[in-house]
Order: sequence, then C-alpha cells, then structure tokens
Amino acid sequence: MGTVDDMEQRISLVTLGVADLARSLAFYEQLGWSGQQTNGTAFFQAGGQAVVLWSRAALADDAGVADDDGGGFGGVALAHNVRSRAEVDHVIAAAEAAGARVTKRPQPTFYGGYAAYFCDPDGHVWEVAFNPGFALDPSGQLILPDFGEAT
Amino acid sequence: MGTVDDMEQRISLVTLGVADLARSLAFYEQLGWSGQQTNGTAFFQAGGQAVVLWSRAALADDAGVADDDGGGFGGVALAHNVRSRAEVDHVIAAAEAAGARVTKRPQPTFYGGYAAYFCDPDGHVWEVAFNPGFALDPSGQLILPDFGEAT
Repeated sequence: MGTVDDMEQRISLVTLGVADLARSLAFYEQLGWSGQQTNGTAFFQAGGQAVVLWSRAALADDAGVADDDGGGFGGVALAHNVRSRAEVDHVIAAAEAAGARVTKRPQPTFYGGYAAYFCDPDGHVWEVAFNPGFALDPSGQLILPDFGEAT
Repeated sequence: MGTVDDMEQRISLVTLGVADLARSLAFYEQLGWSGQQTNGTAFFQAGGQAVVLWSRAALADDAGVADDDGGGFGGVALAHNVRSRAEVDHVIAAAEAAGARVTKRPQPTFYGGYAAYFCDPDGHVWEVAFNPGFALDPSGQLILPDFGEAT
C-alpha cells in the first residue's frame, strides 16, 4: 500500500512506435479512429488519454533506450503528464528511489515542455512530462488541444 | 478519416508483462500506487482505465504470440473492452479487414467473458474483450470492481 502520492495513478498517453506512419494511420483510420497529425506524429483522443503513433526509432531515441530487438525496448512508451516542471523532478526522484533506471534526466523539450524517462523493473518505458500545451483536467485526464491539422 | 465506428477510441486496460509480480508490485507501490490483487494479477485503477501487472509469459501465451525476445512481443497488451460478445466479433472482423493479424480468435474466457487478440501492423498487441465483471460507464471508461482482496 503506498503511503506517499509520488505519482498519481494515471497514464496520459500511450505511444506506439511504428515503422511506417502512413501505414499505421491507415490501419487505425480503417477501424474508425480519427485523429490529428502534427510533426509527423498522429494523436488520437482516447477517453481521458491519448494514443499516439510515432516513429519507433524516434521514440527509442527520445526515451534514451536501445532498440536492438534484444528484448529490451518493446516499442511502447507510457506517458505520465504532470502540471509543472517541479512535478517532473519529483516523480523522477521517486521513481529512482523506487529502483527505476532513469534513461533520460529531466530536461527541456522541443515543444517548450520539460520531460524525463524511466524504465520500470521489466524495462517498461515511462515518460514523465510537463507539456504546457496539453491540458489536464482536475481529475488528471488529458485533453488534446486542436493542432489545426486534422488527418 | 474513419467513416465507420468499428472500434471506439479507447483503451480499457494496459497490461504490463512482468517477470516477478512481487517485485513489480513493490515498485509501483513505492511510487504511491495502490491496487488490488486477484489470481496472481495486480489491478490499478488509473483514471478511466486500469493498469494491470501480470506474468509476461502468461500474457504472451494468452495473446497467442511468441515471446522469443526477437523483436515481436514487446511485453505490453492494450485491452479494448466492449459491452457484448457480438461487439467482440465485430471489432475483430473490422481489425482483420483492416489488415490486422488475429492471434487469438474470439472465444470464452476463464472469467466468464469472451475475448480475442489481434496485432496491429507493428505487432502491437490488442485484446478485444467482453468482461461482464468490468463495468464500462456511458462514455466507455472502465471502472474496476472491488475484488475483495486489497494489496
């Protein structure tokens, strides 16, 4: 039983690393999904979170993990978005204290945010991010903005 | 842009395959998470979905995929829960029509439900399940029941 609320029980985004964005987008669109593309990435609002399709190589690189098909990186990253840079630092410190391997230290991101990555004991990749462009509602659910570039 | 709503834009559960449930549970509990264990599986309510810790080998076996560390199975499965057996059949048919590889045909589950698995073009594993014990609210969000066995 946890005694300190170091990390809320939420996933903000599930990012699926893909080999061919157009192929993957066609697949999910054929299933009836619709989303938005921006910067070569597709975002789908999925309940109170987002599903993201992004280059698997770029995702591994961003996460600071090797994608050598050797059983490490599984091609998926779970993002836990928070409300401030300080919260990123806090969650990463808590994860490290819990035994996580921090694969990318907290740092500014290209989109004006601040983020870091850790791997859980089985190598599952978590990003902890403050993204001022992605709103969290009071319950912590993620609401994607309008990127102005519908698919 | 999808024209048929074959599959709603939701993830109901994210299951992380783990080597040692006690170790993984200790890790997430140290981060402040609390959940419930049942049948050797840990369930955490996480916003409108659930995060599940389950034996990686059992997960691969359940999904009908090989876990040979050869770049296929990434140790994660995304579950899309629906409201009836017929919906399972419908979503699986739609996925297959969209080019998915169906790794487990729709069939009854040990918990009295009905489920199937498919892999997307990059091998990401999706389960499509009707679980009469897991309620979906009108917006499709998953609310875990009380298993009566808190961790």
